[in-house]
Amino acid sequence: MAYHYNDDRLPTIVVIGGGFAGLELVKKLNNKPFRVILIDKRNYHTFQPLLYQVASAGLSADSIGFPFRKKIGPYPNIAFRMAEVQEVDPAAKKVITNVGTFLYDHLVIATGTTTNYFGNKNLASWGLPLKSIGEALDLRSEILQELEKAIVTETVEERESTLQFVIVGGGPTGVELAGALAEIQRNVLPTDYTEIDRKQMKVVLIEAADRLLATMSEKSSKAAKNYLEKLGVEVRLDTRVQDYDGASGVLQLADGGTLRTRNIFWTAGVKADPLPGIPAENIGRGGRYLCDTMNRITGLENVYALGDTSLIQGDAAYPNGHPQVAQVAIQQAHRLASNFLRWETGKKGNAFSYKDKGSMATIGRHKAVVDLPGFSFSGYFAWYIWMFIHLMALVGFRNRFMVFMNWMWNYFTYDKALRLIVRPYKRPQ
Amino acid sequence: MAYHYNDDRLPTIVVIGGGFAGLELVKKLNNKPFRVILIDKRNYHTFQPLLYQVASAGLSADSIGFPFRKKIGPYPNIAFRMAEVQEVDPAAKKVITNVGTFLYDHLVIATGTTTNYFGNKNLASWGLPLKSIGEALDLRSEILQELEKAIVTETVEERESTLQFVIVGGGPTGVELAGALAEIQRNVLPTDYTEIDRKQMKVVLIEAADRLLATMSEKSSKAAKNYLEKLGVEVRLDTRVQDYDGASGVLQLADGGTLRTRNIFWTAGVKADPLPGIPAENIGRGGRYLCDTMNRITGLENVYALGDTSLIQGDAAYPNGHPQVAQVAIQQAHRLASNFLRWETGKKGNAFSYKDKGSMATIGRHKAVVDLPGFSFSGYFAWYIWMFIHLMALVGFRNRFMVFMNWMWNYFTYDKALRLIVRPYKRPQ
Repeated sequence: MAYHYNDDRLPTIVVIGGGFAGLELVKKLNNKPFRVILIDKRNYHTFQPLLYQVASAGLSADSIGFPFRKKIGPYPNIAFRMAEVQEVDPAAKKVITNVGTFLYDHLVIATGTTTNYFGNKNLASWGLPLKSIGEALDLRSEILQELEKAIVTETVEERESTLQFVIVGGGPTGVELAGALAEIQRNVLPTDYTEIDRKQMKVVLIEAADRLLATMSEKSSKAAKNYLEKLGVEVRLDTRVQDYDGASGVLQLADGGTLRTRNIFWTAGVKADPLPGIPAENIGRGGRYLCDTMNRITGLENVYALGDTSLIQGDAAYPNGHPQVAQVAIQQAHRLASNFLRWETGKKGNAFSYKDKGSMATIGRHKAVVDLPGFSFSGYFAWYIWMFIHLMALVGFRNRFMVFMNWMWNYFTYDKALRLIVRPYKRPQ
Repeated sequence: MAYHYNDDRLPTIVVIGGGFAGLELVKKLNNKPFRVILIDKRNYHTFQPLLYQVASAGLSADSIGFPFRKKIGPYPNIAFRMAEVQEVDPAAKKVITNVGTFLYDHLVIATGTTTNYFGNKNLASWGLPLKSIGEALDLRSEILQELEKAIVTETVEERESTLQFVIVGGGPTGVELAGALAEIQRNVLPTDYTEIDRKQMKVVLIEAADRLLATMSEKSSKAAKNYLEKLGVEVRLDTRVQDYDGASGVLQLADGGTLRTRNIFWTAGVKADPLPGIPAENIGRGGRYLCDTMNRITGLENVYALGDTSLIQGDAAYPNGHPQVAQVAIQQAHRLASNFLRWETGKKGNAFSYKDKGSMATIGRHKAVVDLPGFSFSGYFAWYIWMFIHLMALVGFRNRFMVFMNWMWNYFTYDKALRLIVRPYKRPQ
């Protein structure tokens, strides 16, 4: 027997956000005795780990986005609504959106995070973020526009700042983007931008902590730094960014130093944006919802937070909450789906416990670092593992196939071929 | 011996526009005794015949655009500049752009055409054009947004106009777009938009003349109409569009009839936009430059127009000028390239004469029409021929390969999988 979305007797679960957590939850609720409504402001799931490859012209946008309807179209008890949530009303059990109001029995908030500029307005308006496909395409356009501009720029200073690419934040995204930019400098400039002296292009990676990839092992941090420097990236550790002057193009560092640049790529931090209607006392560090070990938001009834937006209190192994990574999101979604079924049959729910399967980052061709529980490695093999894991994690066979084909192409040609400025990026003001 | 762009002793040819004409000319001038500067406002060549497939979510934008630098990077006597031309000064032999002024010995204008709304402001602001990759992505977003909207729309009238897709103009682009929309209705709606009754979606193709594909044979026109109607498209011949009221969503026809729609796709006409600085007496019908049979703009010295922008006078076989199609552009470019070499060595140039190799259009799976000189055919074989010719005409092996892979995918799955609204299309006002 198939459960159907139109069956009013079923309890309604509204899921806000179709990232790793939301999409995984919805998949697990396929043909289970619930009406499920997935709400997202976009009509597709974004595979965020590969955004930097869209930005660096190695992958097409279409190959890392997956339309929700393609996934849940065949699930009769699940509906999709493209909508922006305006407010949540936990007392009345409803979600108010720009396309109408949805009543729920259970509400799951899985809205992820947005870029955190730590309150600096100049950096917020000049630093390009990399959290969505639209932003990845902006970043791609910006890189290519600057290369075109460098050719026709008249003063030495302007050319210097045009060709200086500064990435702030040495987490996986920052490291991977820096590596990809260095590969453009190394492989694309000599053939296709012969009027630019490739040594004039500079890639600088700035990190406030004393090592890159702070969530990984020390060994991997060192290997990543080593790889980046081999590719010609200038890595600045223990360095904080203070402010940016858009008029002069000068980036002010906390230690008094300055960098002349027209290109700031901001991967230095994220924050959750709590939905209006959730009381402030339920919000913890980084805008995350305070949850018990079953992802129930403390003090609210039948409201849950998953993944990056949740801050679980009471897991002895993670007293400060779990890391904001895809694996946590996916595992929490699985646990919550099974708890929904248990609760529905009167059983007690099970507490979430995170199984850390390891983490990894890629720097460039044949250069990656992998931490598994217990040991770390880097190099060729790590790079192949990184590719394999990411391919398998992509949603949909088509995307997997297209990304694989693109990677093969890029591997044999050393090219980043998708260098189209389809929509020129316009700077603020 | 290789000629080099930096060699000031070589005569300078400035080419404005890298469409079929401009790109082909530049390729033919590779390693010839000229300095060549290709100027385009975009950094890539657009393969316009497949734009409708980007719009209908069958192909990714990256697979039909080709970065100019990838093509001309290895040509030492050719440079590329991404720039918008502001004015041409034929007396001083210079081109003024937003990135500086270029002096020329020969100036080739190959700027193509833009969409012609025949002076109607309402249609210009509401009718979506399909001449660039950006516009194709807008159109894709608009189609998908309307389908999402139809699900949450409350009144019957609003749902009707949301699901009514009106294409104005029955040339190849209009016919192909109508066919692709009908395939979305037929193959995508039943699986992925189960909340929409697929019979409520309507695709209407409006053509002012008494047949579709007016430049093709009567037999092909009839076959195309037949195919479209089989797919469920309503074809209205002898019908002119008069005006559109954005507030009420009513499209006014010249015969007094009306259509309720929120989606007008405008493929009804093109016009050339003459560059400022070219005297009005050199401009003919449709904004095209009046040229002699060697593509020299009449009355100007060393200024040439190629392809859609040219209107050659004096070809007895084409007294009203040549058709504005890719084949004419490419053949004119080849002729002009060889004439440049002849003139340089003191020889006389040769007049252009068009060899019509035929024309074709596709309507949908296994449905295409082909006119060859002397005979016409349609159906399966025509469809395969259409695909083969278009694959071969694409620039770059990578694009050919990716388009081929996508076509295989679409063929076997019946899907249009790239249904991402990356940048929502925003209506005027």
